[in-house]
Amino acid sequence: MDAAQFRRLGHALVDWIADYREGVAGRPVMSPVAPGEIKAKLPSAPPEHGGGADELIARLVADVMPGITHWNHPAFFAYFPSVSSYASILGDLACAGLGVQGMSWQTSPAATEIEEVMMDWLRQMVGLSAAWTGVIQDTASTATLSALICAREKLSDFSPAGLQRAGGPLTVYASSEAHSSIEKAVRLAGLGKAHLRAIPTDARRAMRVDALDQAIASDLAAGMRPCAVVATTGTTNTTAFDPLDAIAEVAERRALWLHVDAAMAGTAMILPECRALWHGIERADSLVWNPHKWLGVGFDLSAYYCRDPQHLIRVMGTNPAVLRTQQDGEVSNFRDWHIQLGRRFRALKLWFHLMDQGVEGIRARLRRDLGNAQWLAGQVEAAPDWQVVAPVALQTVCVRHIPAHLAEPELSAHNLAIARRINEGGRAYLTPSLLDGKQMLRVSIGAERTEREHVAALWAALREAAAAV
Amino acid sequence: MDAAQFRRLGHALVDWIADYREGVAGRPVMSPVAPGEIKAKLPSAPPEHGGGADELIARLVADVMPGITHWNHPAFFAYFPSVSSYASILGDLACAGLGVQGMSWQTSPAATEIEEVMMDWLRQMVGLSAAWTGVIQDTASTATLSALICAREKLSDFSPAGLQRAGGPLTVYASSEAHSSIEKAVRLAGLGKAHLRAIPTDARRAMRVDALDQAIASDLAAGMRPCAVVATTGTTNTTAFDPLDAIAEVAERRALWLHVDAAMAGTAMILPECRALWHGIERADSLVWNPHKWLGVGFDLSAYYCRDPQHLIRVMGTNPAVLRTQQDGEVSNFRDWHIQLGRRFRALKLWFHLMDQGVEGIRARLRRDLGNAQWLAGQVEAAPDWQVVAPVALQTVCVRHIPAHLAEPELSAHNLAIARRINEGGRAYLTPSLLDGKQMLRVSIGAERTEREHVAALWAALREAAAAV
Repeated sequence: MDAAQFRRLGHALVDWIADYREGVAGRPVMSPVAPGEIKAKLPSAPPEHGGGADELIARLVADVMPGITHWNHPAFFAYFPSVSSYASILGDLACAGLGVQGMSWQTSPAATEIEEVMMDWLRQMVGLSAAWTGVIQDTASTATLSALICAREKLSDFSPAGLQRAGGPLTVYASSEAHSSIEKAVRLAGLGKAHLRAIPTDARRAMRVDALDQAIASDLAAGMRPCAVVATTGTTNTTAFDPLDAIAEVAERRALWLHVDAAMAGTAMILPECRALWHGIERADSLVWNPHKWLGVGFDLSAYYCRDPQHLIRVMGTNPAVLRTQQDGEVSNFRDWHIQLGRRFRALKLWFHLMDQGVEGIRARLRRDLGNAQWLAGQVEAAPDWQVVAPVALQTVCVRHIPAHLAEPELSAHNLAIARRINEGGRAYLTPSLLDGKQMLRVSIGAERTEREHVAALWAALREAAAAV
Repeated sequence: MDAAQFRRLGHALVDWIADYREGVAGRPVMSPVAPGEIKAKLPSAPPEHGGGADELIARLVADVMPGITHWNHPAFFAYFPSVSSYASILGDLACAGLGVQGMSWQTSPAATEIEEVMMDWLRQMVGLSAAWTGVIQDTASTATLSALICAREKLSDFSPAGLQRAGGPLTVYASSEAHSSIEKAVRLAGLGKAHLRAIPTDARRAMRVDALDQAIASDLAAGMRPCAVVATTGTTNTTAFDPLDAIAEVAERRALWLHVDAAMAGTAMILPECRALWHGIERADSLVWNPHKWLGVGFDLSAYYCRDPQHLIRVMGTNPAVLRTQQDGEVSNFRDWHIQLGRRFRALKLWFHLMDQGVEGIRARLRRDLGNAQWLAGQVEAAPDWQVVAPVALQTVCVRHIPAHLAEPELSAHNLAIARRINEGGRAYLTPSLLDGKQMLRVSIGAERTEREHVAALWAALREAAAAV
């Protein structure tokens, strides 16, 4: 492809993306294809000869689009808001066009320094103190794994034998509502899933601090070495908030690392009225928040903040001859701040997004979504045979249809059937999930184009589906 | 930003990227800025008000470009070729524009199935058998960490206590020339850096298999449990090739996991004439290769192949209620194939690149680069006071200037001074590195626009610099 063809195809692709985004509401939200259907469209062997680029958009339309579930659809209520603004798309395009590596400062100083500025801007936006230092990671799963490894190395004082030496086993604590990435991180870090304690929660599904303290005490009595507690600021299932300040008190008294998983809800802290929900955050050791969710920056861009970057660098750093540069010691070489060595210039899309929307634009959108969630919760609570099954702290509304003639397990089957009818109908997409082992309907509001009318249409669709199944 | 502004700015950015790429040869390769210079250009606080998008390109030019080291410059000879073709850029743009999550099959079936096809195409391109199954990871560092965790779990049979239980320590083996990511992975996996054995190499800097076998035997005698060997197919420093077939024989006999790091050199295996270099590959358990290097796909796109995906899934899988879908069991949910949960639609850029260049186009470019490396090595060997200090297996040429009047340590200082003069001069960029503790000049050839004339200009610049310092 030469420059002329790139310009021509690039313009056409930009226009195609704009057409797609503007027309996305007319598509079924969840892809209706069957397993294997997309695969069957492609040749079984790679093309020996090139020159097929003029067909790119035609191939996208014919081979890819039937297999797309539309995360930017206004009726996307599944999983989490994965907003990616037009400005963020341009940031990704600029990143790809420059094609530089930000592994060391020298390999493109702007990639490092603009990231430093962006992480400082984000810090200010959510009201964190200047005691925090941030770095862009790819996902919260990776950031939480990094945090637990940092906690492990702190307690073991960088034992050259790793975990393979004498001494009581390290234990980790998180609530029973914590994200699956925490158990995965405990396993991957070699700590053993038997050493993760699932602390029970209260009626609001927040970690019970008394139970945490008891679990630590009994582990100490049994010769274990309590290592880290992961508190969740906005659980995935119901957006529950663990009481950070009280957990921090325990963590400090017991000398545990406190990691905070604010993957989804960190964005809410841009709103001063939400910050009480993470009161105590300044007492944590590390924090992960995903601007690639509700904030509006395209995936992937996870913000990892820590209070002791030198410890992080000691855990993650390497120093082979081939990577040494003249500026080592006076600059940040972000390759030493996470698992990966190579790194994209991800700060660009965040910068473009913030320049375009400003903090006030983002605040307005978040408040719109919070208002829509409260509206939906009010509708559900006022309707006979419907129930809001968890507190609505932010933009996630967990509901159940509970007609009097059904009991478990039929009630769970009935709610799962509602979810499938909605999702397969194509007019909306939500996530069926479990609460206390019972099926419920989880509505996550916050796609960029989701307005009140779309939430109202979902509510109508839910009632229709409940009557039909 | 509305659609009209996106179209306008998108077209302008596409044109700007084309202008940048076409004119990149006129820029200094390595950014000349001083630490802090880019950071000082940006406001210290985020913008309260938006609307700044019309300035995006102006900001790129003024604030970013002075801090860019140009990896697509024809005189980029540092680190590794990080080719990102025009077609790959369009793939990244399409990925960002669609903005979907490929964590589960259902969240966009095309993201999963096109990835499956692309990984199969790549497998065929390098001549691997159908016994391998691939998944896209972000980097080789992450993939190698995944492989070592898989090896660890296999040997410990998924002990719920992780590494924190009785039994001799697990040990890992790699050559003394192996990449720093292997030591990092050993540390992060909790195995302890004291349990990584650096196996000595032969004159070609390939792992000595006799020394490997001896190291395993003495570890066994000392009560250790040998777990994995990492063989390198093309080391970072000198592109040395460990003897895979002989290592595989040891690994099989001793029941060790064999992971192959072919991050850079995997691409060479597209050329049938190079495949003898990884003879024995079919006996390995896992393999990482970075198409985001020499193949031409923009960073990040690392290909991880394994022979037992069910084992990988057992290591990496989770099954929370919120992620269950109707298709579980009949499809691949790639979230269970690596550390991360979320994932971008990275297969698009690979597909676009292959459609555009075809396998024959890629082969021609690789052979051009191999020819240029041999040409440079010939020039250096024929010149008085210059030396090629490692075998030139592929596109990396390691050289030293060794004027008779200098001895160590002055000789090392002299060669480092040559590198700095070249890099600071802006006409080329190479990586100074160490070989046996002595400074050398590492020339990695393979940027997309690097032709013979650019290699000849580098050779002239090296001789000039050697005379001047």
